[in-house]
Amino acid sequence: MVVGFEKSVSATKSVPSSAKKTLSSDSVINFARGDPTMYESYWKRLGERCTVVISGNDLMSYFSDAEKVCWFLMPELDHAIRRLHRVVGNAIADDDRFIVVGNGSTQLFQALLYALSSPNEPEPISVVAAVPFYSSYPEETEFLCSGLYKWAGDAYSFDKDGPYIEVVTSPNNPDGAIREAVVNREGGKLIHDLAYYWPQYTPITSRADYDVMLFTLSKATGHAGSRIGWAIVKDKEITTKMVKFIELSSIGVSKESQLRAAKILGVISDDCQNSGPNREENFFEYGQRLMSERWEKLREVVKRNGVFSLPKYPQDYCNFIGKYTDSNPAFAWLKSKDGVNCDNLLREHKLVTRCGTNFGVGSKYTRISMLSPDEEFNLFLERLSAIQGPPMERLIVKG
Amino acid sequence: MVVGFEKSVSATKSVPSSAKKTLSSDSVINFARGDPTMYESYWKRLGERCTVVISGNDLMSYFSDAEKVCWFLMPELDHAIRRLHRVVGNAIADDDRFIVVGNGSTQLFQALLYALSSPNEPEPISVVAAVPFYSSYPEETEFLCSGLYKWAGDAYSFDKDGPYIEVVTSPNNPDGAIREAVVNREGGKLIHDLAYYWPQYTPITSRADYDVMLFTLSKATGHAGSRIGWAIVKDKEITTKMVKFIELSSIGVSKESQLRAAKILGVISDDCQNSGPNREENFFEYGQRLMSERWEKLREVVKRNGVFSLPKYPQDYCNFIGKYTDSNPAFAWLKSKDGVNCDNLLREHKLVTRCGTNFGVGSKYTRISMLSPDEEFNLFLERLSAIQGPPMERLIVKG
Repeated sequence: MVVGFEKSVSATKSVPSSAKKTLSSDSVINFARGDPTMYESYWKRLGERCTVVISGNDLMSYFSDAEKVCWFLMPELDHAIRRLHRVVGNAIADDDRFIVVGNGSTQLFQALLYALSSPNEPEPISVVAAVPFYSSYPEETEFLCSGLYKWAGDAYSFDKDGPYIEVVTSPNNPDGAIREAVVNREGGKLIHDLAYYWPQYTPITSRADYDVMLFTLSKATGHAGSRIGWAIVKDKEITTKMVKFIELSSIGVSKESQLRAAKILGVISDDCQNSGPNREENFFEYGQRLMSERWEKLREVVKRNGVFSLPKYPQDYCNFIGKYTDSNPAFAWLKSKDGVNCDNLLREHKLVTRCGTNFGVGSKYTRISMLSPDEEFNLFLERLSAIQGPPMERLIVKG
Repeated sequence: MVVGFEKSVSATKSVPSSAKKTLSSDSVINFARGDPTMYESYWKRLGERCTVVISGNDLMSYFSDAEKVCWFLMPELDHAIRRLHRVVGNAIADDDRFIVVGNGSTQLFQALLYALSSPNEPEPISVVAAVPFYSSYPEETEFLCSGLYKWAGDAYSFDKDGPYIEVVTSPNNPDGAIREAVVNREGGKLIHDLAYYWPQYTPITSRADYDVMLFTLSKATGHAGSRIGWAIVKDKEITTKMVKFIELSSIGVSKESQLRAAKILGVISDDCQNSGPNREENFFEYGQRLMSERWEKLREVVKRNGVFSLPKYPQDYCNFIGKYTDSNPAFAWLKSKDGVNCDNLLREHKLVTRCGTNFGVGSKYTRISMLSPDEEFNLFLERLSAIQGPPMERLIVKG
């Protein structure tokens, strides 16, 4: 059984990223979650430009655009999403595609399972993803014991005939790899989760053009608390079923969040399109620089202490940044060189991470959020530096 | 099969309540949905008092209060909900009860199905409600073909042994009746949906004190677009499972909406507690007066044209208003006296309503929203007045 978003953090009391407490050398710090609070300082810098003001009588109706398939999507957000993808060049979101907004891409993933399955099939459709896969996919697929779909594990070892759904996460969570579908058989339906396909995490090499693509504000801009995700969908029937799912699950999506997301995405696009002489660093340039600095520091520490290894990513030309850039994933996928339980080792140093077993692989791997605030990230590096190899006892137990 | 929230409106193009279009005598008007836009003018009157201002760097983390069971509930909203129930006197929400916030009470209803069922049972638990029941319960229970729970229809005719879940909606949607559980057998678990247990709809006769109670901002204040519902729960284990459901479904609930809901509920409580000499009508007094006026007008029209009948409700002492008041439900539950299809008859007069068959009863009933804007409500009365009995052809076909 896969542990969830919140409860994977052990019984130890730990400092959540959101708590503005002073960290001490005793504080247990939680890197198990991908809470993207790192971006707060950027948005603070922008001052009033992203502020939204909502009066008591605003946004009261259930409906946003009753004539549209996705009747709860606000036109402002629809417009801002399409524009941002055009500006960044990371996905095709032209007017012939449908946009579906959801309560995070989490809800949209489940809307897709519903939309891509059918109650008329003799058995539930298999849902697979290549290991290591996002730790929440199995539980999100299984928790309601649906007769429509069932989790079937690692796509590499999937050998059942008939229809199936493969989730392709690229860049991948947890390991940052650029991925393609691996099953490639007839009857396969693909969900492309592109939550991390933004310039701060990976070079933008082409405009993605898959049947269904998922994005989320949490990872794009850091506004996780808003619970806004979106899907870009080619097929009208699939869109209609997704909308039905969201209607039955939550009768739409917070308009306050939609309004704010539209505002923030609009400001990002404005800044990206500003080519004036006094232009400031835009959001993605900022993010790319910050992530790049963090990864450089992390690689240095990992190299120095010799206990762990990190994946290597090829450089590639980023169409958005306009030069060759590195991949700087939102998570570090740490592997212990001598095969010890990585998670346990880090917990001894008061670092809570998410063990590899949650992602369908062994405990010599663990996932660490790279999106925590500066103070936490620096403490993480400091503590990681202090690990000089496994203590003797552990080697003995292991041996 | 039960039709859903949006698609029950026939293929006719109709004016959604949210569209600020000018109504003409040709406009088809939709009363099938309970879009509570009627309250807009009240909130407009309050001016800046309910305005929220959200900066770009606000509300970014997933977490609201990581130490609490419901870690995504903002403390401000928790406080505002408990205070409002204390001020109104409609439910016990003391500190020993848990509050769970959801994406509308729709999501919380499903969270409860999950929390009150178990994957270890030999078969799915039966979910029942007494007819006429809220039209979305069956579909929300069935659409994912869950192995945990299944819709078992009318509570009055439920005779299966073993555990079951009964939904008790009081005042009831669609017919406004005050209800109690009807099955009353061992192993029964109750969900009390108290969405309409507010002074504008019904006399508040006591503080409700059930195991689980559902409320929603949509019906309490009219802010349907915010998608905020809440549950008051006695048991910690049930709370924990509900939180798990919401975590897996949507990783929490929009903070923008929570912040705004907290503000609005706070202003309502302030006004209710204001006993100064220059005090203005508070929100519930306003709502009660408006609903009472609408119901009076409707009863007059219905009496005059002689084609329909409406339920009768006993007067009762409302602890909040401080005098005997009538029930003024959010929906009119219209019955045709001669048994014709009520929905069809009204559609001939360009009024779209929700047919009784959606609520588990016959087509001689239909449900009409009483919460539309003034202009629409007046047109509704006008058109209803014009119905002078079934045309001859219909009587002939029927005979």
